[in-house]
Amino acid sequence: MAGRDLPKGNAAIGQSGGPTAVINQSLVTCAMALRKLPHIKRVLGMRHGVNGLVKDQVVDLGRVNAQHLAQVARTPSAALGSSRDKPDKAYCEQILAACRKHNIRYFFYIGGNDSSDTCRIVNELAHTSGYDMRCFHIPKTVDNDLMLSDHTPGFPSAARFLALAFMSDSLDNASLPGVKLNIVMGRHAGFLTGAAALARGDGRDADRNGPHLVYLPEVPFDQQRFLADVERVYARLGRCQVAVSEGIQNAAGAPIATTLVQGLDRDAHGNVQLSGVAALGDALADLVKKNVKSGGSSIRVRADTFGYLQRCWPDPSPVDIKEARAVAAFAVRLAAKGELSGSVAIVRKRSKPYASEMKHIELSDVAGKTRHMPAEFIDGHCNVSRAFLKYSLPLVGPLPIMARL
Amino acid sequence: MAGRDLPKGNAAIGQSGGPTAVINQSLVTCAMALRKLPHIKRVLGMRHGVNGLVKDQVVDLGRVNAQHLAQVARTPSAALGSSRDKPDKAYCEQILAACRKHNIRYFFYIGGNDSSDTCRIVNELAHTSGYDMRCFHIPKTVDNDLMLSDHTPGFPSAARFLALAFMSDSLDNASLPGVKLNIVMGRHAGFLTGAAALARGDGRDADRNGPHLVYLPEVPFDQQRFLADVERVYARLGRCQVAVSEGIQNAAGAPIATTLVQGLDRDAHGNVQLSGVAALGDALADLVKKNVKSGGSSIRVRADTFGYLQRCWPDPSPVDIKEARAVAAFAVRLAAKGELSGSVAIVRKRSKPYASEMKHIELSDVAGKTRHMPAEFIDGHCNVSRAFLKYSLPLVGPLPIMARL
Repeated sequence: MAGRDLPKGNAAIGQSGGPTAVINQSLVTCAMALRKLPHIKRVLGMRHGVNGLVKDQVVDLGRVNAQHLAQVARTPSAALGSSRDKPDKAYCEQILAACRKHNIRYFFYIGGNDSSDTCRIVNELAHTSGYDMRCFHIPKTVDNDLMLSDHTPGFPSAARFLALAFMSDSLDNASLPGVKLNIVMGRHAGFLTGAAALARGDGRDADRNGPHLVYLPEVPFDQQRFLADVERVYARLGRCQVAVSEGIQNAAGAPIATTLVQGLDRDAHGNVQLSGVAALGDALADLVKKNVKSGGSSIRVRADTFGYLQRCWPDPSPVDIKEARAVAAFAVRLAAKGELSGSVAIVRKRSKPYASEMKHIELSDVAGKTRHMPAEFIDGHCNVSRAFLKYSLPLVGPLPIMARL
Repeated sequence: MAGRDLPKGNAAIGQSGGPTAVINQSLVTCAMALRKLPHIKRVLGMRHGVNGLVKDQVVDLGRVNAQHLAQVARTPSAALGSSRDKPDKAYCEQILAACRKHNIRYFFYIGGNDSSDTCRIVNELAHTSGYDMRCFHIPKTVDNDLMLSDHTPGFPSAARFLALAFMSDSLDNASLPGVKLNIVMGRHAGFLTGAAALARGDGRDADRNGPHLVYLPEVPFDQQRFLADVERVYARLGRCQVAVSEGIQNAAGAPIATTLVQGLDRDAHGNVQLSGVAALGDALADLVKKNVKSGGSSIRVRADTFGYLQRCWPDPSPVDIKEARAVAAFAVRLAAKGELSGSVAIVRKRSKPYASEMKHIELSDVAGKTRHMPAEFIDGHCNVSRAFLKYSLPLVGPLPIMARL
C-alpha cells in the first residue's frame, strides 16, 4: 500500500535499546541513503533515541563528512546514543510534536522489539492525527529474538564473540582443569547461550571440547539435575565448562537469579537486573563447590559473567556488517518507493554458500513480540541441536583453528 | 660461565602458572630449536608442568608433526597443560628422580615468578646432587611482574585485550550513560589495570574517553575518596567508566575484596581467590549505588569482572608473538652454547620504531620476586602517567579508531 506522493520534508534516525557491534553500520547506511533522496532536505539524528528528540537534542547528519561517517560505521555501540525509554501515550504525543516542529516526514528507528513498538505507536499516532509521516523500523538486537527474521543484525557478532570466548576459555580450563561456569546474556531467548556451542568446532576433539553443558532460558532449570550433569562430565573428562543463560528459570518460571540470590535490583518494569551483576555465576559456583566432589575432595570451580563485552566487541562478523547495512538500505528503499510504514526481516536463502535477502514486514508483526529458540534448536535439557549449529555457523565468520597436543 | 662439554641426553619442557595467548609460541619455538641440536636425543613435554613429570605423564614432542606444532603455536593457553604446584624440597627430589629416569639433561620451564623459583630449586638440587642438568626459565606472565624485564611475554596480548575491552565498553557506557566498573586481573601489579588507559586513544576525545578512573594495587584504596572521584567524573560527563584492579588494598594492606565481601575462598597459601569470582565488582557497584546520587536521584551502576578471557583471548599482539618466540629461542641458544642455567629478560632498545633484545639473567634474579608498577608509571591516586602509556602503547599492536558523532 504505497502512497505515490512522497511528502517533502526532513528525515530523522534514532538508535534504541542495547547497542551492538554493527548498529552504526545501519545508522550510517541509512543516513547516506537518505542524503541522496531529492525530496528529503535534512537528515537528523536523535540523541539517545526519542529521549533526545523530545528534548530537541538532534544532530544534523547531512553536515557530517562522509569519511568521518564511514569511520563511525566501523565503530561499535550506538554513536547517536541509545535509550531504554518505553514511551507511553503522553510521551508519544511529545514525540509527534517534535516531529511536526522539525518537519520530520520520515522516521527511522533502529532497535529491537521494544523499539519497534515505539515506532508502531508513533506511526499510528501520526496517522490518526493526519500528519503524513512514514515510520520504519530497522532491526537490531544481539538477543536474536525478533519475529519473522531468520536472525537479527547484532546477533552474528555477539555470537562470534561467544564462540571465541568459549573456545579460548575452554583451552584455559583444559590447561588448569576444574569446573568453569560462564554466564551469557539473553533474558528470554537462548540463541546467544547456544552460540557458545560453536566453540566445540567440528574436529575430532569436538565431543571433548567445551562447552560441555548448555543451559537455555527456554528449558526449565533444575538444580539437582544441573549438579548431576556437572558431576557426570567431570567424572568423564576431569573438567567441565558450562554455558549458562542469565535468564535461566525454574519450572515455575521464576528466574534462578532470584531464587539463588537475595536483594537483586529491579527496573521500573519490575524486571530483575541481570546484566552488569555477577551474582548468579558466583551463586552457581558456590552450589557446585558445596555439592560436587571428586574422589571425596573438593574441586576447582570458577565463574565468569561475560557482561557487556558480548554486545560491543570490536571484531564484528562479516555477514553481520553486510546485513546491518542491507536492512538499513532496504528500509530507505521502502520509504523511497512510497511505502507508508514497515519493518525489515532477514530471510535466509536456500542457496549455498550462505546468502540472505530482505523482506518488508508490518510493524505490528514485530512490535513488542519475543521470539524464542525453536524446539528443533534444542537437544535435551542441556544442549543445542545440530540444526542450531548449522544455522548459526555461517553467521559468525571464520573461527580460528585450535590445535591441541 | 659456560660448561664447554655439552651433556648428551634428553630435554624436557614444561608450562606452568596461568596460561597466556602466546605461551604456546614459546613452547613450540623451544621444541623446534631443541629438535635441531645434535646432542639432544628426545624432546619431552611435561603434562601439567612438574606435576606430570613426577607422574610420568610426558609427551614426545620430537614425534609431533611440525605443521601441527605450528598450529599449536597459534593456539592460546598452555597446550601441555599447566600447574599451580609450588614444589617443596621433597617434591623437588621427585622431580630430580624423574629427570634422572628420563635422562633429562636440559630442563626448560615456561612461567612466571613461581615457576622460575621451581626452576631455580630444581637446578640447585641437580647441582648439589652432582647430576649434570641445565635448567632454563622462559618468562611468561600476563601480570608483567618479573624483575629485570622491560615486560614479559603474555602481557602485551592481555594489555591488548584490555585496551579493546575498555574502548568498546566505554562506547557502550556513552550510549547508555551510567557508572561502569570493570575489574581487571593482577593481584599485586597494576600493569594490566593500567593498560585499560590505552583505550582513551590520543585523539581530541582522549580526556572524555574512558576509563576515567584507574585504581591500581600499588596505590592504597580509600572508599570515601573513590566515591568522591566517581561523583566528580559523573558530574562532569554524565557518566563514569572505572578500571579497578582485583588486587586493590587499603592503607593497611588488606585486600578490599576481603573488607567488602564476606566468605571468599582462600587457596593453600592463604591467598584470597580473586579470579573467577565477581563479588568485588558487585560490592563496589552497591557502594556507588548507595552513595552516589545525581540531582538527588539514583544513577545507573553496572560492574563487569573481565575474568579469564583477559589471558587467553585469541587475538594476540604481534610484538608479543614475536617476543614469546624470541625468549624461547634465546633460552635454547644459552643451552647450546654451554650455559649452565639462567632466565631471559626482554630489554627494550632505545631505537624507534619499537624493538627489543634478549638478555641472559640469573635464575635467582627473577625467582619468586615480584615487580610492581614503578612510581613514574603512576599519576596521582587514580590514573597512570603518560610515561606508562608511552611504555605500553608499542606493545599492544594496532588498535581500531573509534569515531564518535
